[in-house]
Amino acid sequence: MQEIFRKAKKPGLDPGTLVHVGARKAEKVKITIIDYNEQQYEEKEANTVEECFPFKNSQTVTWINVDGIHQVDIIEKIGNHFGVHPLLLEDILHTTQRPKFEDFFSYVYVVLKMLQRNRETDDIEVEQISLILGDNFVITFQETVGDVFDPVRERIRNNKGRIRKMWADYLAYSLIDTIVDNYFVILESVGEGIESLEEELVVNPSRETLHNMHMVKRDMLVLRRSVWPLREVISGLQRGESALFKKGTLVYLRDVYDHTIQVIDTVEAFRDMVASMMDIYLSSISNRLNEVMKVLTIISTIFMPLTFITGVYGMNFAHMPPKDALWGFYACLGLMAGVVGTMLYFFRSKKWM
Amino acid sequence: MQEIFRKAKKPGLDPGTLVHVGARKAEKVKITIIDYNEQQYEEKEANTVEECFPFKNSQTVTWINVDGIHQVDIIEKIGNHFGVHPLLLEDILHTTQRPKFEDFFSYVYVVLKMLQRNRETDDIEVEQISLILGDNFVITFQETVGDVFDPVRERIRNNKGRIRKMWADYLAYSLIDTIVDNYFVILESVGEGIESLEEELVVNPSRETLHNMHMVKRDMLVLRRSVWPLREVISGLQRGESALFKKGTLVYLRDVYDHTIQVIDTVEAFRDMVASMMDIYLSSISNRLNEVMKVLTIISTIFMPLTFITGVYGMNFAHMPPKDALWGFYACLGLMAGVVGTMLYFFRSKKWM
Amino acid sequence: MQEIFRKAKKPGLDPGTLVHVGARKAEKVKITIIDYNEQQYEEKEANTVEECFPFKNSQTVTWINVDGIHQVDIIEKIGNHFGVHPLLLEDILHTTQRPKFEDFFSYVYVVLKMLQRNRETDDIEVEQISLILGDNFVITFQETVGDVFDPVRERIRNNKGRIRKMWADYLAYSLIDTIVDNYFVILESVGEGIESLEEELVVNPSRETLHNMHMVKRDMLVLRRSVWPLREVISGLQRGESALFKKGTLVYLRDVYDHTIQVIDTVEAFRDMVASMMDIYLSSISNRLNEVMKVLTIISTIFMPLTFITGVYGMNFAHMPPKDALWGFYACLGLMAGVVGTMLYFFRSKKWM
Amino acid sequence: MQEIFRKAKKPGLDPGTLVHVGARKAEKVKITIIDYNEQQYEEKEANTVEECFPFKNSQTVTWINVDGIHQVDIIEKIGNHFGVHPLLLEDILHTTQRPKFEDFFSYVYVVLKMLQRNRETDDIEVEQISLILGDNFVITFQETVGDVFDPVRERIRNNKGRIRKMWADYLAYSLIDTIVDNYFVILESVGEGIESLEEELVVNPSRETLHNMHMVKRDMLVLRRSVWPLREVISGLQRGESALFKKGTLVYLRDVYDHTIQVIDTVEAFRDMVASMMDIYLSSISNRLNEVMKVLTIISTIFMPLTFITGVYGMNFAHMPPKDALWGFYACLGLMAGVVGTMLYFFRSKKWM
Amino acid sequence: MQEIFRKAKKPGLDPGTLVHVGARKAEKVKITIIDYNEQQYEEKEANTVEECFPFKNSQTVTWINVDGIHQVDIIEKIGNHFGVHPLLLEDILHTTQRPKFEDFFSYVYVVLKMLQRNRETDDIEVEQISLILGDNFVITFQETVGDVFDPVRERIRNNKGRIRKMWADYLAYSLIDTIVDNYFVILESVGEGIESLEEELVVNPSRETLHNMHMVKRDMLVLRRSVWPLREVISGLQRGESALFKKGTLVYLRDVYDHTIQVIDTVEAFRDMVASMMDIYLSSISNRLNEVMKVLTIISTIFMPLTFITGVYGMNFAHMPPKDALWGFYACLGLMAGVVGTMLYFFRSKKWM
Repeated sequence: MQEIFRKAKKPGLDPGTLVHVGARKAEKVKITIIDYNEQQYEEKEANTVEECFPFKNSQTVTWINVDGIHQVDIIEKIGNHFGVHPLLLEDILHTTQRPKFEDFFSYVYVVLKMLQRNRETDDIEVEQISLILGDNFVITFQETVGDVFDPVRERIRNNKGRIRKMWADYLAYSLIDTIVDNYFVILESVGEGIESLEEELVVNPSRETLHNMHMVKRDMLVLRRSVWPLREVISGLQRGESALFKKGTLVYLRDVYDHTIQVIDTVEAFRDMVASMMDIYLSSISNRLNEVMKVLTIISTIFMPLTFITGVYGMNFAHMPPKDALWGFYACLGLMAGVVGTMLYFFRSKKWM
Repeated sequence: MQEIFRKAKKPGLDPGTLVHVGARKAEKVKITIIDYNEQQYEEKEANTVEECFPFKNSQTVTWINVDGIHQVDIIEKIGNHFGVHPLLLEDILHTTQRPKFEDFFSYVYVVLKMLQRNRETDDIEVEQISLILGDNFVITFQETVGDVFDPVRERIRNNKGRIRKMWADYLAYSLIDTIVDNYFVILESVGEGIESLEEELVVNPSRETLHNMHMVKRDMLVLRRSVWPLREVISGLQRGESALFKKGTLVYLRDVYDHTIQVIDTVEAFRDMVASMMDIYLSSISNRLNEVMKVLTIISTIFMPLTFITGVYGMNFAHMPPKDALWGFYACLGLMAGVVGTMLYFFRSKKWM
Repeated sequence: MQEIFRKAKKPGLDPGTLVHVGARKAEKVKITIIDYNEQQYEEKEANTVEECFPFKNSQTVTWINVDGIHQVDIIEKIGNHFGVHPLLLEDILHTTQRPKFEDFFSYVYVVLKMLQRNRETDDIEVEQISLILGDNFVITFQETVGDVFDPVRERIRNNKGRIRKMWADYLAYSLIDTIVDNYFVILESVGEGIESLEEELVVNPSRETLHNMHMVKRDMLVLRRSVWPLREVISGLQRGESALFKKGTLVYLRDVYDHTIQVIDTVEAFRDMVASMMDIYLSSISNRLNEVMKVLTIISTIFMPLTFITGVYGMNFAHMPPKDALWGFYACLGLMAGVVGTMLYFFRSKKWM
Repeated sequence: MQEIFRKAKKPGLDPGTLVHVGARKAEKVKITIIDYNEQQYEEKEANTVEECFPFKNSQTVTWINVDGIHQVDIIEKIGNHFGVHPLLLEDILHTTQRPKFEDFFSYVYVVLKMLQRNRETDDIEVEQISLILGDNFVITFQETVGDVFDPVRERIRNNKGRIRKMWADYLAYSLIDTIVDNYFVILESVGEGIESLEEELVVNPSRETLHNMHMVKRDMLVLRRSVWPLREVISGLQRGESALFKKGTLVYLRDVYDHTIQVIDTVEAFRDMVASMMDIYLSSISNRLNEVMKVLTIISTIFMPLTFITGVYGMNFAHMPPKDALWGFYACLGLMAGVVGTMLYFFRSKKWM
Repeated sequence: MQEIFRKAKKPGLDPGTLVHVGARKAEKVKITIIDYNEQQYEEKEANTVEECFPFKNSQTVTWINVDGIHQVDIIEKIGNHFGVHPLLLEDILHTTQRPKFEDFFSYVYVVLKMLQRNRETDDIEVEQISLILGDNFVITFQETVGDVFDPVRERIRNNKGRIRKMWADYLAYSLIDTIVDNYFVILESVGEGIESLEEELVVNPSRETLHNMHMVKRDMLVLRRSVWPLREVISGLQRGESALFKKGTLVYLRDVYDHTIQVIDTVEAFRDMVASMMDIYLSSISNRLNEVMKVLTIISTIFMPLTFITGVYGMNFAHMPPKDALWGFYACLGLMAGVVGTMLYFFRSKKWM
């Protein structure tokens, strides 16, 4: 649920008051610095916030990653040193932001949602990634340790591809791209869930199936809320609305934009499929009821007349014609057989059997 | 219901005729004046309307809050003194306005809906807040005493944050912001209601559940009607459509705008969730019917043949073969046991048991 | 139904051919003339069409109201004298126009729908009002005698408000405003209908309830068809698309526009509510079926085993153990009591009772 | 069905290859020429295509109507002589075009759908009308003999209205107007169908009713496919997008545009009504099931206990208390009467009877 | 399923890294070259990639068709020689692209979906066609051997139509046109499926029917995902957004655009029809349940009273009035006949029989 609605902070606080709003907390804030240019590369964990400060005006590209945003003073220090607007710091701390980007000319602020499937509960977990792109640095804020950025780190370390040759905006792009790429992993798992649901529906629909459909719907709700606003974000970036993304990077952003559209398309297609499955489920319940009722009706229709016949000759009237005849009993049994035959014929003609 | 449709005033009245339209009335109109600048601060309750008049052209920021709008003459006096258009005064008195803003150059008129959950009935109560922002004053009209603005008053009194350093437009922003922030409180309570409904649905869906779903839907209807038009209002303000909101305040309005979008998003997500729950509810009713029918069918299918068999040997035919044999009764019981076994096997094979 | 679809005139007629298309006819065409300026006021019923003609170029504001449009020649005469386009006259005669306005520079043509609830059938009756605003006159065409304009007439007669001080465009505005104000009266009655339906649904949903829901839906269909196009009409007028509406009147039209939006909002909210009620109705039928089936199942499940037991000892086998014992009958009754107890326990554990 | 999907021609043909695609064929192609100006009038049937050719550059208005488009060479000859683009000829031959207009500067091409209700099958039949408006001629292509244009022909013949005074664009307008006017005839018949369906629903809903609703839905599908694109077509023409429609004709096209909007409005209203009827139908089935089940339950609940009582005294225990008493039988009957009374009271209290 | 969601590649790869993503692989990559101008024509299969290279700057039109895209190095070599952007090569290899076009000034990239119905599984198979249009060449990439382009090849070989007279953009148009034309073939088969489903629904709806409806829905999902984005693609091309499509070709593209709209229209109409069929299916299930329940109720209602009567005279009371009379048995039978008659009359009056 926590992904669905923004936890209400205390209303009426002075805007720009820094309060952390959100559930999970990393145990300790962890700051990692990756600093590189085409020739050199350095990676280290910062023990104090102040270690990041010199990189503000260096000639290299610097990626400062902050895991854990519950220690408000750390965020504030970074914000002050890098000249970040207080309202924006407030946004970083509110982990239920809608994906958006804001251009402050000397830096761009991008909020994204990183989705990961929790291995234990099988829920989709939403983590807010705040990204600040300055002229020569990228600062990312994550709610907790653990992310999907390892391939990017790897490419920087090993100087693979063009990332070390490019500037900070390409790094920002790479991080956004990795997050969007990861949506496809989530989509694939949702898609597999839908496929197995479809099989369940055909083979043996049960209450469990209904519950699973509901779960898939919620997964898709989470996806939609993460992806729909993303579309506008990347559309804006890709149109070059911010001068910090250089022209050479825009073509890459266009690629990310295409992927975002694909994710949205797929989510919408999934919605259609689940809606259609719901219909099938409902009609399979009705079908099953029909089947049960047919059995009941067949049984009743056969045995009620029979029981009636036995009732007639179970009466104690003194005079009941073939009662005393030797063949009476057999005639009666024959009559019953006739009734059964007629009934069976009737049901067959109605295609109930 | 009163939140849903505008109480019809007597149609055909001359436009600008001041008539109070609405249900609740405060007992007495209460006017409070808060006057401040960075250095000084004054708060008082006005005994007569005329006490407000001097603040029109003061060098300080003045917030005049009017609780209770049923005394038409008071509203009229204020309106005349502050140069407010008669049609606008009419709007203030009609408590079923749609959120909107109108720019009259020398002042801006904003109508908002303040939502509060009634603690007794648990309904969402809608109160119309009319806000007039002039050059150096803000006048707010409320339907009754009691609002959500106490944190703002606190900040003014204690000179917390930047409110005392800023001008009247920032005060107007702060009030709007507080109202929107409060929507999240309402949303949270609705969200909790939905969560508990979901649990009810899984554990024990009943008619009560249906009724609660309907109530949640109505809550959301009220929310939507308050929030959807608000979006346009704040979007307009934030784009700087009114010159009274200074450039420095626009960035704050953009923040409120983001929150409004978040509220709308959440309401829409809730709608999806409730719609999906409705489906589950309906199919759980059908499932339950199926279950009931299976019990009936199983019972009938087992006992009808048995009763038939007893009927056969309850007949009074003189000649009914093993009737007189010692083992006859036991054979008959054995036959019945066989029938029961066959039936049970049949039901198990159909997965009905 | 007649409100829903335009009665087909004979297709292929020459455009501009004047044919009255519509159902109701006033017995006689009645023409009323109200002529006024700030100082003087005159009201009379015209016996011949020609009596209206002098007012075309008078220095006063003239309102010519025509009740009954079935006498084509009268309409034609007026049209010719006041210089009205033939296609427009055709529109006046077709009482199933969509609300629209057309600007012919020397005059504006506005079609509106006046809604009134028929007191006998409780249906909403739709009457087409055609309004022609010239420089100093307003001509209105109504299908029949009886309208909602009496308050306007009253204001002119008694020189209340600013109507006598204003020009013909203000008169046109007043008439439009009165019609829109009247929608709220209709809305209120629909809203009350919905409320009482909701109560019915909770207390005792019946077929009647379903029928009433259908009726409310139709009422709303009528409303929507009258109001949705109206929005565009008034939006256009209020933006000053016609030069005949002077600048001072535009602010009043903006007020009417707000009201129109409110009507639309309310109709849409009503739609949501009725849709939600439909769901409740359907599930209440299902719930009731469940209840009925439970009674049947409980009864069957209790009495079938009992009847079987009586059947066993109703058999005529010579040897049936405790048959001859004195305590046999009581043991049998005890067995039955045990069966009943078990069953009741079973149903309680399933929460069926 | 043929109205719904475009018959696939052999894919991959060279564009402009003339192949007739469609079902119905007139037996013989019939070409009629009507040539007129204000003074004179001539009407004749052409035996060869070539007879039409001289009219291309005459000083009179010429309407060439071609019934039957299966003879590709005839269409081609006309096309070549009048300078029509090959792709356009291809469109004429494909009778499953979407309504559209294309402006080729020296002529305008308009595709419309003429709807006629087949008197035998009661289906709506769709016939494609291709209209080419040149400077002084109109060529219309119809799939088969028989159309709705007779009133236009009549007006030309008898010099009624202004048609003989106007130019070719007015003729084109008149034809389009006649087609649209005819939609109202179709709408009226659909509307009557809906009304009688509504009555059926109230009085005696049956499977037939369901089938009829489906038929109405299909009718509306056909209507929508013909009318929705028409709106854009006429909207374009009326805005003067083609220079061939002169300014004086535009006001007439605006009139047609209004009618088109009315048709669309009505179709949408019908959709709403049918959707609402579907709901009523479904709930009336459920209601009826409820009724049936109540009868079953009442019967079972009354007779099961009675039968049980008879079973008890049908047992053959040697000792069954009041068995041998004279009053035993009557006491037993009294007991049964008591059971029946209790049951009836129970059902009444549940409002089942 | 593979048509629905993009197979997730390993996320975080350097953009432009060439990895084939998709399921089917042709066994071997096959490259065919067709080179022509109005006078001459040459067709050959290339053994090495390098054979294509000379055609880059020839004076003739060259169509290079690559079947099979799993050999990344081949694609890369072609891309490098013809100067194709690496991100675009990546798109070619990802067979789950959304239809789109991108203009790189010296060439245009178009992605389309070719639909073919698999003859064995009856599924719609989606194959991605990437088309690169350069100044004098067209390169097409297909996933596997076998396509719908044979008619185009035929027209080139035999110099039919204008294709040999036109330039490379006309070839590109012809290929796109052929793909879109082929959608009509698919549509026709879907349409036939819907028609036979409708008949099934009327004659004998079964679970099979439901399954088939679901299959049709999925077919339409596939179609929609292929066609909706195509609309934008062709709309863009037809508006002349790329300079490589010359003015003379635009009129042909407009024709393709019309076809695309027709496909979309038809798919939407099919959706409506299937939705309406779903309603009918559901109500036919309910109707059938009603029928079954009526049979059960009739049987029960007739035999329960009869059995009760037999029970009464099956009791063993010593004194049961007409028990010993000769006419007792017959009177009892008469009573039973009376009960049956009453019941039948009751059912007839309720129209259950």
